[in-house]
This record gives sequence, structure tokens and C-alpha cells, in this order.
Amino acid sequence: MAITLYELVGRNDLRFSPYCWRTRFALAHKELDFDTVPVRFADKRAIAFSGQERVPVLRDGDRAVADSWAIACYLDEAYPDRPPLFASRTERAMARLINEWADREVNPKLILLVVRDVYDNIDERDRAYFLETREKRFGTTLDALHAAREDRLPAARAALAPARAVLADQPFLAGDEAGYADYILMGACQWIRIVSPYAIIAPDDPVLEWRGRMLALFGGMAADAAALGP
Amino acid sequence: MAITLYELVGRNDLRFSPYCWRTRFALAHKELDFDTVPVRFADKRAIAFSGQERVPVLRDGDRAVADSWAIACYLDEAYPDRPPLFASRTERAMARLINEWADREVNPKLILLVVRDVYDNIDERDRAYFLETREKRFGTTLDALHAAREDRLPAARAALAPARAVLADQPFLAGDEAGYADYILMGACQWIRIVSPYAIIAPDDPVLEWRGRMLALFGGMAADAAALGP
Repeated sequence: MAITLYELVGRNDLRFSPYCWRTRFALAHKELDFDTVPVRFADKRAIAFSGQERVPVLRDGDRAVADSWAIACYLDEAYPDRPPLFASRTERAMARLINEWADREVNPKLILLVVRDVYDNIDERDRAYFLETREKRFGTTLDALHAAREDRLPAARAALAPARAVLADQPFLAGDEAGYADYILMGACQWIRIVSPYAIIAPDDPVLEWRGRMLALFGGMAADAAALGP
Repeated sequence: MAITLYELVGRNDLRFSPYCWRTRFALAHKELDFDTVPVRFADKRAIAFSGQERVPVLRDGDRAVADSWAIACYLDEAYPDRPPLFASRTERAMARLINEWADREVNPKLILLVVRDVYDNIDERDRAYFLETREKRFGTTLDALHAAREDRLPAARAALAPARAVLADQPFLAGDEAGYADYILMGACQWIRIVSPYAIIAPDDPVLEWRGRMLALFGGMAADAAALGP
């Protein structure tokens, strides 16, 4: 049965969701073929079959699985003959903690820097929805956030410090080879790269070198995606 | 050959260093017997043989290893017949990232709440050294930090959010059994518990239940240590 990934899309076919990128990498790691269905921010109907309103959603035959973490666990269970995302329960448990770290310490600092870029690059039909929900969430205007991004850049770079320290000594977060820990953080890096030319990661940061290795993986899957950043 | 752990000590034999606790748990996990040598903050001579000035230091026969992370890696290499701290290179790599997360996101927020408790509970001979280095590091007085700890409590609790999310679903950070990821964070929890009765972890926090499981491990090793907190 065919696998279909429902993923967020902006204008000009920009596929920028950090969580959908985690799933793209997971599927590539598992050596599974998949099609994608682009879903606009406000187009909840397209994924109504999943019983919830957020992408990524994976459709695998009759099964629908939402949430990038649940999808990763599903893929290992459903395809045990393919390369494992988690070779042990301990690996999976620790990857989960890393997933929570990225969701709570990294992505929230990055979104403050690129949220207006996201707004600028989503479909016009999504803008009113996005503007209302985000200005309510952040308690300020997207323009005010954009104007303050230089001030917030140090905090965003500091949020990458745990990864930076590790990558100074080893090529990937998962060690000698890329693994799900890398896909988690690469989702964030690909997100900010796709929606914005703003150089959040400093040129001399080991994280940028690692990002280059991640862009090259799986035949340049991430490098080939439409992006506004270098 | 005997293994000796050189670890930080305060007055009344309080052994509170979060990094030394990581090593205590690592040694217990490896089922290795060890003696301890208490080292005061300012007593650099006691560990001069290690070529550096910080505890924990492990002395194993002729070998001296400093730094809790280096000690963990050493123990797995030197004692491959004992239970592994890291069953794969991927487990070790991810534990390293979790180690950096704790060092950079968790411990720096906790120290602001308990630094005066540490001062109150170190040997009198260490106090001038501690006061000078810490007030310089934090750019304010220990009393000012102590007075502001209620204000900083939410940030400290928020720093535990990644662990909290994981522990809502699984008994240990490393999964079904405790592992090095748990020892990393338990080092921090044991540190604040030993030096202070201040209830940093909320009573209804899953992290507190997990701490109870960690206190009970290895025959109550952590529960049996002298502590000011419950």
C-alpha cells in the first residue's frame, strides 16, 4: 500500500514545517517510498480523516497516524525489516527527551525570529487565520517581533548550545551516523532555512557544518527543497 | 585495584555535587565497589594528581579520570563485562546531548535558587572562596539571589518541562529501566535536595515521583545520603 505524507505548504510550494521535516527524514531513513499531499494552514478538511487538525499526518493504507513522534514510533513498529529509527527502547526513550527539548527550548526561540517570514510566505487564504492565532499567542504584533529579532538572536543561538557542544566532537547528534536525534533538530534548521534568508546560525557555528551534512543526506533530499535561505 | 571517587563535600558531610552524583550512580549501575574521598571546594591540592582542579575525579589503580562524562565513558571502556551505561554508540551520543542539555538549561537555573544554601552549607574555610567566585559569576550578591528565588522558581520548573513530559508516560528517562539519562538529571535533583529544604519540584510534578524511584535505586543509595531536603 502506498504511504502518503500530508504536510504543511506555503506559497511557491514551500514545505517548511519542522515537524513534517522530521517525518520526511524518518521515512527516508526507513527507505520507504512516499507521496506527499500539501496542506495549507487553514485547510483542516484535508486531514479531517485523521481525527485531528495538525500535520504531519501519515496515511499508510487504511492507517492514519498524526504527530511526528507517533509517526516515528509507528514506522519502526510497522516496518521492522527496514533500518530502525530506534535500535533499542533506550534509544527511543532518549530520543523522546531530545524531541521534548527541541519542542520546548529550541523551536519556541526560533519562531520569534521567523514568524513574520512565515506569514509572508503562506498562502494568502491562510493569512488572516495565521495572523490572528499568532498575535494572540505571542501577545504582540508580528511586525514588532520582526523588529526585535536582532535582540532575540543571541537567545536563539544559545538554545542550540547543547547541540553545538556535541557537534564539536562528533559528526552527528546520534554519533557516527545520522539518526532521529538529528532529524529532530534538522527539522528546526530546515524550517528557518526554508522560510527566511535571515542567518540565524552563525557562519562559524559547528551546527552550520552539521546542517550541511544533513542537507546532503538521502541524495540531497533537504537541499533540493524550495527554500528562501542558503 | 580499588576505585576511589573524589567528591565535593560541605559541612556535616553533605555530598551535594550534581556531577559527583552522576558518577556515583554510574558506578552503582556498573556494579563496581568504590571508596570516596571528600574534597572541600577550595582544597585543590587533594585532586592535584588529576592534573586539574574539579571534582568528580575517579582514581582507578594508576588511572585518574576527571569530569563526570569522561568518567562514564571510561567505565564502559574499562569494564565491558559489567552492565553498560551505553549499550550502543548511538545511546552514548544521545546521552551526551542530554548531558549538555542538563548542564546548560537545567543546572544554571537551579543554582540561582540554591546558591546561598550551598554557601550556608559548605565548610567555613571554603566560604570566602565561594562567595568571591559566585558573586563575580552572577554579578550580584548571594542574598539578592536568595531573595529573588520565588520569582525565579517558575523558570526553574519550566526547565524541567522536557523531562516532565517524558515522565508522564514512562517510568524513567531511559525508558523502562533507569539509565545514564536518569543519572544526569538525578544529579541535579539530588544536589538541590541535599543542600536545601526549598521545594523546587512541585508536589504534583511527575518529576517528583520519578525522583522517588531514583532515591530507591541501588539499595537506597541516594536516599541514604545526608540531606537537608525531604
